[in-house]
Amino acid sequence: MIGGGENAFIGEIHRISANIAKKFNLVAGVFSSRLDNSLLFGNSLNLSKERCYSNFKEMAIKESSREDGIEAVVIVTPNHLHIPIAKEFLKRGIHIICDKPLSTSIKETKLIRNLTKKSDKIFAITYNYSGYPLIRYAREMVTSGDIGKIRTIQVEYAQDWLYEKLEDTGHKQALWRTDPLQGGPGGCLGDIGTHAFHLLCFVSGIKPTEILADLSQFVKGRTLPDNANILFRFVNGATGILWLSQVAPGKKNGLVLRIYGTKAGIEWSQENPNYLKFSIPSKHTIIKGKEDLSSYPNLLKLTRTPPGHPEGFIESFANLYQEIAEAILLYRKGESKLCGELMFPSLIDGINGMKFIEAAIESSSNNSKWVTLKYD
Amino acid sequence: MIGGGENAFIGEIHRISANIAKKFNLVAGVFSSRLDNSLLFGNSLNLSKERCYSNFKEMAIKESSREDGIEAVVIVTPNHLHIPIAKEFLKRGIHIICDKPLSTSIKETKLIRNLTKKSDKIFAITYNYSGYPLIRYAREMVTSGDIGKIRTIQVEYAQDWLYEKLEDTGHKQALWRTDPLQGGPGGCLGDIGTHAFHLLCFVSGIKPTEILADLSQFVKGRTLPDNANILFRFVNGATGILWLSQVAPGKKNGLVLRIYGTKAGIEWSQENPNYLKFSIPSKHTIIKGKEDLSSYPNLLKLTRTPPGHPEGFIESFANLYQEIAEAILLYRKGESKLCGELMFPSLIDGINGMKFIEAAIESSSNNSKWVTLKYD
Amino acid sequence: MIGGGENAFIGEIHRISANIAKKFNLVAGVFSSRLDNSLLFGNSLNLSKERCYSNFKEMAIKESSREDGIEAVVIVTPNHLHIPIAKEFLKRGIHIICDKPLSTSIKETKLIRNLTKKSDKIFAITYNYSGYPLIRYAREMVTSGDIGKIRTIQVEYAQDWLYEKLEDTGHKQALWRTDPLQGGPGGCLGDIGTHAFHLLCFVSGIKPTEILADLSQFVKGRTLPDNANILFRFVNGATGILWLSQVAPGKKNGLVLRIYGTKAGIEWSQENPNYLKFSIPSKHTIIKGKEDLSSYPNLLKLTRTPPGHPEGFIESFANLYQEIAEAILLYRKGESKLCGELMFPSLIDGINGMKFIEAAIESSSNNSKWVTLKYD
Amino acid sequence: MIGGGENAFIGEIHRISANIAKKFNLVAGVFSSRLDNSLLFGNSLNLSKERCYSNFKEMAIKESSREDGIEAVVIVTPNHLHIPIAKEFLKRGIHIICDKPLSTSIKETKLIRNLTKKSDKIFAITYNYSGYPLIRYAREMVTSGDIGKIRTIQVEYAQDWLYEKLEDTGHKQALWRTDPLQGGPGGCLGDIGTHAFHLLCFVSGIKPTEILADLSQFVKGRTLPDNANILFRFVNGATGILWLSQVAPGKKNGLVLRIYGTKAGIEWSQENPNYLKFSIPSKHTIIKGKEDLSSYPNLLKLTRTPPGHPEGFIESFANLYQEIAEAILLYRKGESKLCGELMFPSLIDGINGMKFIEAAIESSSNNSKWVTLKYD
Repeated sequence: MIGGGENAFIGEIHRISANIAKKFNLVAGVFSSRLDNSLLFGNSLNLSKERCYSNFKEMAIKESSREDGIEAVVIVTPNHLHIPIAKEFLKRGIHIICDKPLSTSIKETKLIRNLTKKSDKIFAITYNYSGYPLIRYAREMVTSGDIGKIRTIQVEYAQDWLYEKLEDTGHKQALWRTDPLQGGPGGCLGDIGTHAFHLLCFVSGIKPTEILADLSQFVKGRTLPDNANILFRFVNGATGILWLSQVAPGKKNGLVLRIYGTKAGIEWSQENPNYLKFSIPSKHTIIKGKEDLSSYPNLLKLTRTPPGHPEGFIESFANLYQEIAEAILLYRKGESKLCGELMFPSLIDGINGMKFIEAAIESSSNNSKWVTLKYD
Repeated sequence: MIGGGENAFIGEIHRISANIAKKFNLVAGVFSSRLDNSLLFGNSLNLSKERCYSNFKEMAIKESSREDGIEAVVIVTPNHLHIPIAKEFLKRGIHIICDKPLSTSIKETKLIRNLTKKSDKIFAITYNYSGYPLIRYAREMVTSGDIGKIRTIQVEYAQDWLYEKLEDTGHKQALWRTDPLQGGPGGCLGDIGTHAFHLLCFVSGIKPTEILADLSQFVKGRTLPDNANILFRFVNGATGILWLSQVAPGKKNGLVLRIYGTKAGIEWSQENPNYLKFSIPSKHTIIKGKEDLSSYPNLLKLTRTPPGHPEGFIESFANLYQEIAEAILLYRKGESKLCGELMFPSLIDGINGMKFIEAAIESSSNNSKWVTLKYD
Repeated sequence: MIGGGENAFIGEIHRISANIAKKFNLVAGVFSSRLDNSLLFGNSLNLSKERCYSNFKEMAIKESSREDGIEAVVIVTPNHLHIPIAKEFLKRGIHIICDKPLSTSIKETKLIRNLTKKSDKIFAITYNYSGYPLIRYAREMVTSGDIGKIRTIQVEYAQDWLYEKLEDTGHKQALWRTDPLQGGPGGCLGDIGTHAFHLLCFVSGIKPTEILADLSQFVKGRTLPDNANILFRFVNGATGILWLSQVAPGKKNGLVLRIYGTKAGIEWSQENPNYLKFSIPSKHTIIKGKEDLSSYPNLLKLTRTPPGHPEGFIESFANLYQEIAEAILLYRKGESKLCGELMFPSLIDGINGMKFIEAAIESSSNNSKWVTLKYD
Repeated sequence: MIGGGENAFIGEIHRISANIAKKFNLVAGVFSSRLDNSLLFGNSLNLSKERCYSNFKEMAIKESSREDGIEAVVIVTPNHLHIPIAKEFLKRGIHIICDKPLSTSIKETKLIRNLTKKSDKIFAITYNYSGYPLIRYAREMVTSGDIGKIRTIQVEYAQDWLYEKLEDTGHKQALWRTDPLQGGPGGCLGDIGTHAFHLLCFVSGIKPTEILADLSQFVKGRTLPDNANILFRFVNGATGILWLSQVAPGKKNGLVLRIYGTKAGIEWSQENPNYLKFSIPSKHTIIKGKEDLSSYPNLLKLTRTPPGHPEGFIESFANLYQEIAEAILLYRKGESKLCGELMFPSLIDGINGMKFIEAAIESSSNNSKWVTLKYD
């Protein structure tokens, strides 16, 4: 693991989730750029001294030359380091599990794409919201035609924690996210927008072909957008809206996905994630729950408790780790092509997220003109 | 009353609401363009025969020449007749209570504006959602600074009843609403959009200066938009999103207003209208209810039952009628200038709604360019 | 109307509701025991002077001797006057519309029962919650077997307005309700318990055969119960719980009814009354709404707005008035036996409510022993 | 671990939770009474062969004689084995972590109590619902007087999975729970009632002094209660209701706790556990969330994600394991008396649960008479 040292909430989530997924064993890491801190923290995780590093390149070199060296690395640093780190490990044959967004610039992603292709390694992006069981269920409903042809998609991801200039108080998380050099140019587009963008594509099975954005920096002195009003167009005439905000009082982690088709509509909200509203036109609404997962037996492995026993954020993460573990096991057996069945987000999803960020910025810089989005 | 004959749901709502407001007495009307039908229906309302008409001009002439002639007329016809009818009554000195949208074309509105000015009569538009007590409470909160400076406004008004070509089944309500000649060019913009537009301006106290729209006709063969994705900009840098749909399965009358400012956020949903969510950043959410109205004693007259005894759509309407009655009483006493204190929507709000419709169409026709909105 | 003068919230609700039901015309009343006050208030309702009385017996005598005398009287006084008033009007051939609970003592009810039988007049009790459309829908579901055999019924009716000694502040509503002489011995049993008791019997179609109660006076110095924990047994082995409270902080008018049978369960909450939860075992929950009423076409007349346009407390009342009006019209035509089809609560329901109160008190006085409930 | 083999949902939850709590390492177990099965399952958990047993006594003997023998044992068998197993381990100096209910008979508990006292070992009962962060917050609110003097407590725990005779289908979980020999005489009292009973005592800080019950077996042929209607009285005049059901269609794991005091009321629902409703009389309701935990800094260690990132059932379990781990560490250091600060349920809570079961049965067998509850 690179990053995820003291007070880094997401690093701990990765560790717990990998643990729940069972197949992973944390043995090495860079938890600080100061060796003493890295050692101290590594020790608290029961790591052996010689595998606590202060430099990721050193770690890549040493681990790749050990017989018991790591098979996969988890990257949970600020965004600007994702690619430089991934590069070092990829080229030494180590699988990558990388936090979102993939990078701070789309240019960097070409190199990493070639490298990944060449190395044939797994490159997972932890868009964890796609790991929620009811999200998978929603995807299956769309795929099996229960929604009909999609007409409009309404997504929002709103928070309030950056409603004032938290970065000025020295708050670490706020600091690097609002710094273009570390967080990239996207601001809320990268931090929460890429999650929402991936989720809408993942569940709907379609991707926007055009995007239009109106970005704002509401907090004075901030240089990156903290609110984004975005419109989408899809190839089949479907349209969409995405609202992103980190300055919306009352919103804690308000990711909401709603898809409306010719036959039905669905609604899912991350803050109460064990339910999915399903509505047929002119009829009542059904509250689907984990009891419905049995319609798609392949989903049952994504839930660890019976209906009525709520699961949350950590379990959504653990579901990705579980699938990544399966992929690594298939890789070991030389059966990587079977990985296609697995649904964890991969490098291509990370790159698409970068395209989303850059197109939104381009649109907003051009007074909200429509910008074409192309995928490879 | 002009319109509101058999099976016209909204006409009956106007009658009940006026009744609840107490000061009105329905004595004359055109309930059908066929005299026999108008008579039959008028009779069911206990109207005297000679005051049931089949022609609005005739009614205007006759009623204005009676000593006990009507003081105010309620117009609940399809949209294209609003202005022609209003004209006849206005110029004969009769107050107007007109359903939304004001008209099918902004050009028509100039004439009516001059006429209203000259006649000095009351011209009310029944944007009834502005009559809900908790909406008035929200407005007071904004006015008194509880929200701080507004940053972003999220509004949606979604229904599902037009999700298929209902107009082909002979459904009267669907028929005229999807016919440009009777409903005007706005489709969902006029039918539900003007409600949402008025509500957001009414509560926030600010009006969009720019609008950008992406309109869709999802149901094949329909010529008017049944879905609209709209962005707003406000003079103070605030932004907004408005989603309108009449093809969103599961949505019955889903009007939702959310306003986020520097100090707090509020959320209100029409389908459970007796509550208002209020949130301070990084803090919990408060569910305000009718028990909170007492903070603004002038609001108490807008509620007829104690907290926990739900009030609904009809009562929101009755609140407008109550205020219109007060205005008419002030007019009688020659104290019309005091009407300014009353909050029922008036002609100017109707005209602004028309501007909203036309600007949205203009933007969408120009590939979603920003269009400036000017108010008088 | 007897009672319902200034500041009497429920009198105004009766007037509005009768108005919405259309067939009623308020022409006479006792609005105060002081003639000047009664006149003043009657005048505000546009009543003629000579029909504003200060004494109900006088009103009964005079109205019954007028050619245009009242056909029905509405009794909205404190409980102890219900029967004395009803008696005077009944014996002069005037229909009775009486607020709940019927009386302050079951002994009084025998006389009124005989009188009603002899007079053949209509005696309606305004248990208004039975007028909500979704409550009628629930009843139809039970009747048509959708719930299966009922196993357990969970009801609660909780408020908080009497959480402290409000009666000491001179609060009129609190004063007579907590006074045994005016409100009767039931306290919360009469004020809210009879509503809940009627509702559970009305919807479930079964009546408790045994009752067990643990009553409390939580507010010091109060002599009547302000909280009641009650168990029921029904003839077919079904059981139930009823919780009543007027001292539960946060509860405004929290009447909730839940019925669980062998095939399904239903839940309804008065504070959001336009919905009904319906659940099949091991399956998801369906949120039924007004769009479902069309399954039982006779229910459609109980709703005045389309799905998504909320209706509330007043409309539930108006539905009873509408049915009472139908009953009076049938009576006029000599077809009273058809009234059986109408569902407004009648004298027998009022008497059953009194039995409920007295049995609950008897049980609680005997350390919560089971007490048998017998119905005629 | 004893029990928790294949398909035993709760065993896996214990393993994941212990893992999240970090300090535990699973090294030995009896996962089946057939050695081959136990080995097979143990192997899937990476246990060494010689530490997979088929007999708990053998395991107790062998593990207690190993230098690296287990420090604590987790008992997740059917109820009738809890005490026999605990006995073997306790007397060999091994801490006990036991699922609820403690036993199938209160008689058994005396022995184990003495044994625990003598051995000075930790005996934890996994009433996991007491581990939810907002439950701890509720407890702190009660303790600090925010609720005032408690007046009434309303608890319910309803499920639907036993609504028909599932035990006849060979369903393992249903089978032993409905078998008096394995599950004990309580039926739903033991399976879900003890959870609810512990939770209400834990949060309110008071224990019922009297109990009255009406138990039902709704499913034909079942010998144990599947529904219970229960009343409580507390020493200070407070009262309560507890409804338990395993035959309530639509209820999955519907544990709801509501406490009403002189100053405020609180409501918590297990199926959406990250929120707590808090209401002051005659005022609005506040939805408290994880953002409120910071009022009591000692609670922060019970949450692993920020507000808006939901946590669930597993995390509530992990919180107990975390505290048990702390207790074991204190024990190692000879500082067991500090354990008192920890809040995980212990043997005494298990015994109280047994008292609750037996008193409820006694009351119901005596036609719902009040039965006194005494605690040591």
